[in-house]
This record gives sequence, C-alpha cells and structure tokens, in this order.
Amino acid sequence: MPDYDRTAVERIIAAVTAEGRDSLTAPEGRLVCEAYGIATPAEGLARSRDEAVALAGEIGLPVVLKIVSPDILHKTEAGGVLVGLGTDDEVAAGFDKIVANAVAYNADADIVGVQVQQLMTSGHEVIIGATTDDTFGKIVAFGLGGVLVEVLKDVTFRLAPTTAVEAMSMVDGIAAAEVLRGVRGAAPADRDALADLIRRVGDLVTDFPELAEVDLNPVLATPDGATAVDVRILVDKNAAREPVRFSQEDILASMNRIMKPAAVAVIGASNEAGKIGNSVMRNLVNGGYRGEIYPINPKADEIMDRKAFRSIADVPGDVDVAVFAIPAKFVPAALEEVGAKGVAGAILIPSGFGETGNHELQDEVVAIARRHGVRILGPNIYGYYYTPENLSATFCTPYDVKGGVALSSQSGGIGMAILGFSRSARMGVSSIVGVGNKADIDEDDLLTFFEQDDNTQLIAMHLEDLKDGRAFAETAKRVSKKKPVVVLKAGRTAQGAKAASSHTGALAGNDKVYDDILRQSGVIRAPGLNDMLEYARGVPLLPTPQGENVVIITGAGGSGVLLSDACVDNGLSLMEIPADLDAAFRKFIPPFGAAGNPVDITGGEPPSTYRNTIALGLEDERVHALILGYWHTIVTPPMVFAELVVEVVQHYRDQGIHKPVVASLSGDVEVEEASEHLYRHGIVAYPYTTEKPVTVLGAKYRWARSAGLL
Amino acid sequence: MPDYDRTAVERIIAAVTAEGRDSLTAPEGRLVCEAYGIATPAEGLARSRDEAVALAGEIGLPVVLKIVSPDILHKTEAGGVLVGLGTDDEVAAGFDKIVANAVAYNADADIVGVQVQQLMTSGHEVIIGATTDDTFGKIVAFGLGGVLVEVLKDVTFRLAPTTAVEAMSMVDGIAAAEVLRGVRGAAPADRDALADLIRRVGDLVTDFPELAEVDLNPVLATPDGATAVDVRILVDKNAAREPVRFSQEDILASMNRIMKPAAVAVIGASNEAGKIGNSVMRNLVNGGYRGEIYPINPKADEIMDRKAFRSIADVPGDVDVAVFAIPAKFVPAALEEVGAKGVAGAILIPSGFGETGNHELQDEVVAIARRHGVRILGPNIYGYYYTPENLSATFCTPYDVKGGVALSSQSGGIGMAILGFSRSARMGVSSIVGVGNKADIDEDDLLTFFEQDDNTQLIAMHLEDLKDGRAFAETAKRVSKKKPVVVLKAGRTAQGAKAASSHTGALAGNDKVYDDILRQSGVIRAPGLNDMLEYARGVPLLPTPQGENVVIITGAGGSGVLLSDACVDNGLSLMEIPADLDAAFRKFIPPFGAAGNPVDITGGEPPSTYRNTIALGLEDERVHALILGYWHTIVTPPMVFAELVVEVVQHYRDQGIHKPVVASLSGDVEVEEASEHLYRHGIVAYPYTTEKPVTVLGAKYRWARSAGLL
Repeated sequence: MPDYDRTAVERIIAAVTAEGRDSLTAPEGRLVCEAYGIATPAEGLARSRDEAVALAGEIGLPVVLKIVSPDILHKTEAGGVLVGLGTDDEVAAGFDKIVANAVAYNADADIVGVQVQQLMTSGHEVIIGATTDDTFGKIVAFGLGGVLVEVLKDVTFRLAPTTAVEAMSMVDGIAAAEVLRGVRGAAPADRDALADLIRRVGDLVTDFPELAEVDLNPVLATPDGATAVDVRILVDKNAAREPVRFSQEDILASMNRIMKPAAVAVIGASNEAGKIGNSVMRNLVNGGYRGEIYPINPKADEIMDRKAFRSIADVPGDVDVAVFAIPAKFVPAALEEVGAKGVAGAILIPSGFGETGNHELQDEVVAIARRHGVRILGPNIYGYYYTPENLSATFCTPYDVKGGVALSSQSGGIGMAILGFSRSARMGVSSIVGVGNKADIDEDDLLTFFEQDDNTQLIAMHLEDLKDGRAFAETAKRVSKKKPVVVLKAGRTAQGAKAASSHTGALAGNDKVYDDILRQSGVIRAPGLNDMLEYARGVPLLPTPQGENVVIITGAGGSGVLLSDACVDNGLSLMEIPADLDAAFRKFIPPFGAAGNPVDITGGEPPSTYRNTIALGLEDERVHALILGYWHTIVTPPMVFAELVVEVVQHYRDQGIHKPVVASLSGDVEVEEASEHLYRHGIVAYPYTTEKPVTVLGAKYRWARSAGLL
Repeated sequence: MPDYDRTAVERIIAAVTAEGRDSLTAPEGRLVCEAYGIATPAEGLARSRDEAVALAGEIGLPVVLKIVSPDILHKTEAGGVLVGLGTDDEVAAGFDKIVANAVAYNADADIVGVQVQQLMTSGHEVIIGATTDDTFGKIVAFGLGGVLVEVLKDVTFRLAPTTAVEAMSMVDGIAAAEVLRGVRGAAPADRDALADLIRRVGDLVTDFPELAEVDLNPVLATPDGATAVDVRILVDKNAAREPVRFSQEDILASMNRIMKPAAVAVIGASNEAGKIGNSVMRNLVNGGYRGEIYPINPKADEIMDRKAFRSIADVPGDVDVAVFAIPAKFVPAALEEVGAKGVAGAILIPSGFGETGNHELQDEVVAIARRHGVRILGPNIYGYYYTPENLSATFCTPYDVKGGVALSSQSGGIGMAILGFSRSARMGVSSIVGVGNKADIDEDDLLTFFEQDDNTQLIAMHLEDLKDGRAFAETAKRVSKKKPVVVLKAGRTAQGAKAASSHTGALAGNDKVYDDILRQSGVIRAPGLNDMLEYARGVPLLPTPQGENVVIITGAGGSGVLLSDACVDNGLSLMEIPADLDAAFRKFIPPFGAAGNPVDITGGEPPSTYRNTIALGLEDERVHALILGYWHTIVTPPMVFAELVVEVVQHYRDQGIHKPVVASLSGDVEVEEASEHLYRHGIVAYPYTTEKPVTVLGAKYRWARSAGLL
C-alpha cells in the first residue's frame, strides 16, 4: 500500500464540509492528488517577475501564467491567463502584462502573485475517475479521452479499490488499448503509471467514501509518467452510506435451516384444490419431503391426513421454515407468530407488496422479521426447491431430477421457464429458488449457501437488479473460484444514462458497469435466457480443460468452417497442430482430407475414422478439448456415431483422462436422438447448430480462466 | 452524373502504362482528382519572390513552400520545404531561403521555382478509398482517420459505384459517425461533401477499372468542404478483369428446365441397394416425380421397373436433367454425350474434383459443358430437391413438406442439417439445393430462378465464398426487394488481412466487406446456422409489418424485461403508447399491472385478459407488431393460451388485419406443445427463450426496411 497522507485529505474535506460546499476547488483537488501521490502539472507562485522566470526555469518551458487574487474570480475575463510562454523573456513580459491587466480590471484587487504552471503539450489523453454507483458503491473508470470515450463509450469499470492486476486489466481492457502502446509512430504511454494512478484513485475513494465523484480528466500519459491535468472532486455525505450486511456465519446458519429444514409449516394450508395452500401441501407431501410438515389453518382439523394447527404457536416441536400461502394483509400478524416460534425462514409466496406499490407493508414485514431474526424469501414468489431433501416448497409442480445445478430467478415467469426447460432437458437440479421482491434474502445469501453445498456444482441466476451489488460481486468473486456462477442480467439495455454531475458519473450510467464488474467477479454472464439454461445444463457436465488447445474433428468441411467461426466468437483458441500430431491424424484420414485444424476426416468415412481421430485427440496431452462435427451418412449413422463417441470418451475417462468434448450433429432427424444420447453421457451435443456446443464450451473456458484453473 | 474529364485521366493512365509504372506520381494523382472534381489543397508555382507572395495571398495563409527542381529529388534533405508560413514577410523570406538552400545543396540544379501550397490546419481527418476486391470487384471504403480506423477498424464498404443515398449511408454508417456532426465543441464536417467525394471515387474506379487502388488519406473535412490532402493511386491491368456472366434470360431458360424438368436421366442408375445410383432412382420414383425417368446403365436392361439405356444417346425423347452417379473419372465422357443430347443441367454428385485438388478435371468438365451449353450443378453435392415437382434428385431421403422456403448449401453437411431441421420443424420447403464446388451454377443463378418462382417466398443460402460477389450482390439487391434473402456466410472470422499495398486495400481484407455489401444488397445475414434455419422457418409466416411500432404484451414482468432487451438487440422500436391506447389497455388489466410498453397484464390473469389486450393491439392501427410473453398458470394453461391467440389472430385476419405476432412461452413442458400449435398457425412461438421469437421478428423487419416496405 503506498504511503498516503490521509491527514491532509481529512483536513480538506473538513474545510469543504464546514463551508457547506459540495465540491473541492482546483487547488484543494491538487492537494488531495498530492496527498495520494497523483502527479499534477508542476506549478508555483511567483510574487515577482524574477521569481516567475526562475520558477519557469525549474518547471521547464513552456508554461502557463495565471493571476492569483481572491478578488478576481474570472481570470480569463480579466486578462489574467497566458498560455504557452516559451522563453524567459516571454515569461518576464507575461508576468508584467498579467499584473497590469489585473490592475486595469480591478484597481482594488489584492494581487497575491502569478501562478506559474507547467504546460502539458504531449501525451495520450485519458480519463481516470471514480464514482458512487447505486448498485456497486465505489467504482473506478478508465477510458481514452476525446471521441473514443465520448462517442464510442470505450470505457471500463471496476469495483474500487482495485488490485494492481485489476488496474492493469483496465488499461488493457478498453477497445482502443492498442493506442496506449503507441501506434502510427506515436510514443507509447506509461501503462504502469496509468494502472498505478487508477489504484490510487480507487484507494482515495475507499479511504474517504464521502468523496462521491473524482474526475481526473484529462490525464496525460507520456512514455515515463501520467499527470492529472484537471481534477474535479465532489463531496457528498450520503455517498458514504453502507448497506446492512449479514456475516457469512449468520447467513449460513439461517440458509442451512431454510434449505435443509427438519420441519416445515404451511401458513394457510388448505384441503381445497386450486388454492395455493393446497398446492404447497401437495407438493411437499407428493414431492417426497421426509421432514415434519405442519399445516396451519385455524378452520381445519386435518389437511392431507395431517393434523392441522390453529397457529404455528401450537406446533409442538421446532419449525425451520414457514411457507406463507395467505393474502398479503394477513402476513404481518402471522409473521409475528412465526418469529416468536423461532422459525429460520419465512417463505412469502403472496404478492401485494412492493411490486404493487405497497412498500409500507413490505417494510413492515421486514421490520418484524429483523426483530425476530427471521430471514424472508420473497415476497411475491413461486417458492423454492431443494432436491437433495425432496423439498418442493412451491405452488408449482414438484421437480425430482436431482443433480448439481442450482438456479434462481427474480421473476416467476422466468422461474417457470427454468422448471419447464429443466424437465424437458432432464437437467439435474439441486435447487430452484424464486427471490421475487428480494425484501431480504437475495443472490448473495444464495451464493453463500450454494458455495458450501456439496450437492451444488454450478449456480445460475436470473436477476434484474442487485440490492447490494458490492456484496454480490465480492461473494461471487469468492464462490466462482470454486463453482461456476452464471448470471442472466435482464434489463441490460433499458437503463439509460443517469443524471450525474461528473464525467465519470455520466459514463457509469449504463450496462457496461454491470458487465465489467460481473466479469471482474468471475461470473459467466449469459446473453439471454436460453443461453443461461444451456450453460447451466452443459457446463457442469464438461470436465475442466487443462489448457487452451482446442481441436475440431469434423466429417463435414462445412461444419468445420462454422465451428471455427464459433470458436473465434467464443474466445477459444484453435490449436496449431504440431507436425508429429498432424502426421498422426493424417494416418487415419483420406489423402484428400485436411489435417490442420479443423481436422477434416471427410464425409464418407466409416466409424473407425471418427473413433481413431477422436482417440488421438483424447490421448495426446497437448490437446485440451475436442469439438466434433458429425455428418450423417449411411456409412456412419447417427446412433453409431453417438455410441462410438461415448465409448471412446469413456475408455479414456477410465484411464483418468478427462477432457471436455462437445459435438454438433448435422443430419436427418435421427441426429436428435443421437445428440440426446451423447448429452446423457456427458458430451454436450446439439443437432442443427454449430454455435450452441461451442458456446457452452466457451462458457466452461471463461469460468476456468477466471477461476485461475488455466 | 457530374461532368468528369475522362480524357485527362486516360492520358495520365496511358503515360503511366507507357512508362511501365504501377503507381501515379503525386502531381498525376492531383490531376486525376481535378478531372473528377475531387478537391485538393490549392497550390501554384511561383518563379519569383513576388509571385510567391501573390500566390500565397490568393490561396490564403498559412502556406507550405516546396522547391521545384528536376534535379532535387529529396526536397527535405535539401532544405527545400518550409511549412506554416503565416505572413507575406515569412513567405517572401521563405522563398529566398528555399532557393538559397537549393543552390547550396546543388549549385548546378535547374531551379524551376517554388511550389506554394495551401496548409490544411483544421478539419476532421477521414479516409476515402477504393480497392479491387477478389470477390466483389471495385469497392469504396470510408472511415475516420487516425486510431479510429487503424485500431478500432471503424470503416465501412460499398460496391462501387455508389448512389448518393448509399454514399451518405457510409458517412452515417461508421460507429463514430456522430463525430462528423461535431462533438466536444468541434465544428461539424460537411457530410454532403464527403458523400459527394465517395461517389466521385466510386465513379473514377468504375470508369477506369485499371485503377486498382485509390487512397485519399487523409481527407480533411471542414464545415464547408472536403479536401483530399494526400492521394495515392495504383494501376494494374488485371484489376480490370470481368468474370464471365450469363444473361438473366439464359439463366432462366436453363434453370427452369433444371428445376421443372419433363425428363430426368440418371447416369449410373443401379438396382444395387447402397449405391448412389440406386438411391437417386429410388428417391425420384418414391418421391413422386411425375416426369420421365431414364435410368442409364450399359450393363442393365431394367432398373426399378424402368427400361434402362446403355447411353443417354439412346433415350428416345428430350432430356432436361442428367443426374451423375458415376465416379469422377467417367464424368467427362458421359458429359459429352449428355451435352450432345441437349440436356439443360448436369447434376454432378460425384466428388474427386476441385475439393480434392483435382482442378484439371473440374476445368475439363466445365469446358465440355460450356461447349454444349449445359449448366453444371456441383460437383461434389448431395443433389437437389424441388418439391412442387415432387423432385428429389439426391441420394439423401425424399422431402415432401411443401412450402415457400428455398434453401441452398455449399457444404453437404450443412445440407443434411437443413434437411433434418426442416423435417423436424415440418418446415414447408420449395427447394433444397447443394451447390458444392460451384464449378458453374452458383447462388446468383439460384436467386434468379427463385425470384420468379411463385412457389418460393424466401431464399436461405449457406455459403463459404462467392464466385462472383458483384453478380450476387446485384442479383440479391433486385431479388430481395421481392422476397427475403437470408445468407449464412461461413468463414467470416478466418480470413485475416490480405497483403495490400494501399491503406484501403489493407482495411478491406476482413469480413466487414461481406457484411456491408450483403447489407447493401438487402440480404438478411444470419449470424449462425441455427439462426438461418429459424429465419427461414419463421420469416415467411409473419405478415409484413406496416410500421415500426412494436408492442409487448406479457403475463410475466420478467419476460417483459428480457423481451425488451431482445427488441433493442434486434433493432426493434418499442412503441411509445399514446395516452388513449394506454387507457384502453388499462381497462383490461389489474390496477397493479403496468401499461406502458411492455404491457404487463400480470401473472394470475384469466384467458380473457390475454384475449382482450391482444385484440386491442391487433385492432389499433397505430400498433404494427405484437410480441407476446406467456406465463404458465393454472388460470390460463398453455394450450388455452395458444388456442385463444390463434383464434383472436384469425378473427382479425378474417377482417383483413395482418400483423406479425410472435410469442415467448415460459412454463412447464406443456408450453412446447402450445408453441408448436401457435407456430402451425402462423404465430412464431418458442418455449424457454425470450430471444428467438424477437430475433425472427427482427429479421422480418430488417427485410421489410431494406425492401422499402416500411
């Protein structure tokens, strides 16, 4: 950590606050920069013509001269600014002229002297800033100055503070990054100095959260440094507010009881078909949940052959979860009883809260829950599933295909799409959770639970916003090192620019902030609903690749070309096949087939050619992943291909060789069954598309890279 | 057409050619520009100091001075260049100094005088050029100078010559187009002058095709003009070569006989199962083709109960098509006989030609075909289908779901994917054609046929290259005005940069050329195989929208958000709902539902709410297209939703109201059947995805816009 002068900054903020100002003056900004080791143009105060010449000599010519007088606010109007004075004589004459102008402008002005400032004449113009984002809190921004950032929005963001590596990833992460390395004969920028400057700005706003926005614009970067030419800093006490957070231990204590309850009460359980309280009871019972189920209904004695209780207070044993199937207006009273009973989680299915404008009611139930230490899921949700416990605490239908994928959705409609897709694709699921209004439990609570849940291997989340983006990002960063986290962020195009008073603030009002910070957190962002579902289904089936060398083996040259396109689109590297491996492939394929990559075995080949080339790709240690392109022929029909691939992949798995294998099948309708057979055996395969299998492999690679496994 | 001085250009090219040069000198380039009305910096020759001052006065200060002497080649070395002379005195002194320098440098030099040239000091730096593309011939390029074009490759291309509208679409078509309208206080560029300059460059290379590359770099654009500061022109006789083309009449005469033959011969017909000659015979017979089928086989008397002929020469009647099912080496001899018989089309199924490196054999069969006026389809193909004639001239399986979609593929593997997808989706198809090596018949022959084929409503083509991109682009431009043309261009990421000696040439070596010119031709480019297939299936079912106002009606707020994202991604405009229409929607939806757009009817609504809101959207003339988001509930189950949508859409169709309606269905597996029901009734519907239905609607809009129907 650099040696910052925090006291100096404290002093300035105190002065600004005392005066009721919301921004720093230029000299104050300069002092803050100095305190944090951010270079600004050299300058000094000259009280005489000779001092001015001497100062200019120290600073280096050319210089800028500016009148310094508490009585002259509009320096330019007063003729008090001269730019580009290049010789001692010019500086001397300039001093006299400025002072004369000032006197002419205001004869009574108290003239302190003349500021002599270094004139920055060269360097790459960049913008470095920090702002306070509603979702993520303090974020830093970096972009190239001028039209690149203004017109093309070529700007990148990270959570503040940043590590050195993250800061350099910003410098390298803009589209025009190459410019900073020097193009068209221009000198390169000192990229280390820029990264260092980004770190310092991030540290500054982290140390002083009341600094709402910091704008260094422009920063001029030369081959040996970076200087903040203009500094603008805004102060806002509200910018320092921190959201309420639970400790990881507290989250886990509650979430473990909620996801693996020993006893569930259904508030508003009913015998009447069509009622939500009936559907929930049926799903709990028919779903095979083995814990205690307590129907709560003041008007019934028995519900679904179980003794009903007038109130949860009457239940004899402990209760971990209470599922609410009663209208919104009855929730507060019932929640008081639930809280008194020591329940860990209140599952608020009913709607009629924040989503319909009834924020008071929602705030009221949150307050009750907080008082009792109850965590709330919802309100306005379909409920949740946790298959290892056969728990279907929902009014939808039970789901029983167990597996390692945990999913959540902010919207009920999307939850139903998750359920339908999962069932249709026979996707193995550990959990499906509706988070609805997220009055309390949100995605980072879920992440924290799934992180340590051995039944979960991948987490996929649909979300429209984040209550506390910083907590999510920090949790996701930790969790994604262990398990892939897939996020479908909806509403990405609809946000528009926020009103903001700084340049950085204005730039931050778009989806790029989410995009950059989710990536910084190791999250795999899905571009659409179907992608999220396919990633969820396919990514856990693929072994983690051990390197970047991808090889395409195809029976159809045409598929090979499209698969290559898809590799580039998905950031995959087609291996440059070494000569010996090339020769080995050639042994198996016809003379007019193409080795290289794609390995084109040509269309009319028997099963043995597919088998031999795939085996070679699996066996050779330099190959890390295989993409197969199948072409339906009479010689190697679809199921013959599927079975041979399963067999050869299994053969190498048995020997401890695990490589991701995906396949694209071109052919008549039989390729659909063949694709399913492959998928069931861990080979991610699709008919009629060259894009999907490569997209799923690409998602696996994105995760493996960000988790540091490659 | 502007008034060009073609004679001047002819004279210069003649001089360059006579001297065996491959590039023009700067003064020659300047003269060419002058002849085509392209402004260059003002200049003149001064023989005396006074003349220099007078000239500078005419041109406008500041100016550049350059020594003019046949004996001084390296002007700068000789001290013969002075830049930025801003006063008469400076010009006068400069003249003397330059002449003195020249004499000092070479006392014997013949000093003609001093060139006085306008110094361009302001304006937007752009690049305008033309190059000769292997695929498309003459193309023009436009981009912003500096890093925008060099680093970000922000450049756009069109076929030369361009119309005024096309030229302006280039000026507006780069990512940084806003820069030219003036940002950050900069003066705007004269965009009309830039468009005019693009046209002139396009006309120049069209008039003089031997001009291989023209580079105006930089062009400086001010608020009232555009000046080409540097000009570089390359000459190459080969750049003027034109590919062989058939007339539209000739193409149609052949293609009509090929697609609708009265008689088909199968060269190499066979009774032996597993042989290609047997598969072709079976598919012709079992596919229900009603014309004459002549098996040709010197060793058989009867094949599939039909008299076999030793040679096509022995066939009694006329033959339109000969399908070749014999090894490549026997093709030339058989093709001679086929040609002698007056056959229109030779369908060359066999491989072993260009694709295996045997270009000689391929050239030989093309020569034979040309001699006889036979058109060749293939070689190296699966054959072709034309369902209106029940014609399955292929070794694959017959296809019989008739409809308006014509498809072609360059690769057999992709052809099989087309067949399988079509069958699986029950897509109505008019034709599937394998073009393989495209030794002769290519995509523009097919376009020309399908253009006038009443059985075809949409054409979808997979291609890896174009033999004659210009012919394709010109044909596609005409055809796409009548019928959507969808293109999947494979190999788009693999091309890399070409070696080229001009800036424009180097920029042109990427997929952007294809992308821009396909768009210029009105083609809907599909990003992947599956997209091409889904566009083909869905676009013809949707009525052409009458305007840009799209309305989303959704039962799931979450789907609404994702559908809105998809609208933005696909260039669709969410209608701003007028107050009266908003009020009308609100009448049907719960008070906490959201009108606006998306119209969120909320999740628990009965069928009548869907019905009423959809009816309103169909009825209101200001609404042009509907996107439906369905959420599976007990109140409105999937098939109930599907049936009510079909009913209400049909109700308005019966009244002559045809609007495109697409749907995304979220729910349990029953939504799959519901989606199929909708699709069968002309509502493009998909389960578990919010992206696909909007993508298909977006494709329809892209076509309608480029066909001038909106």
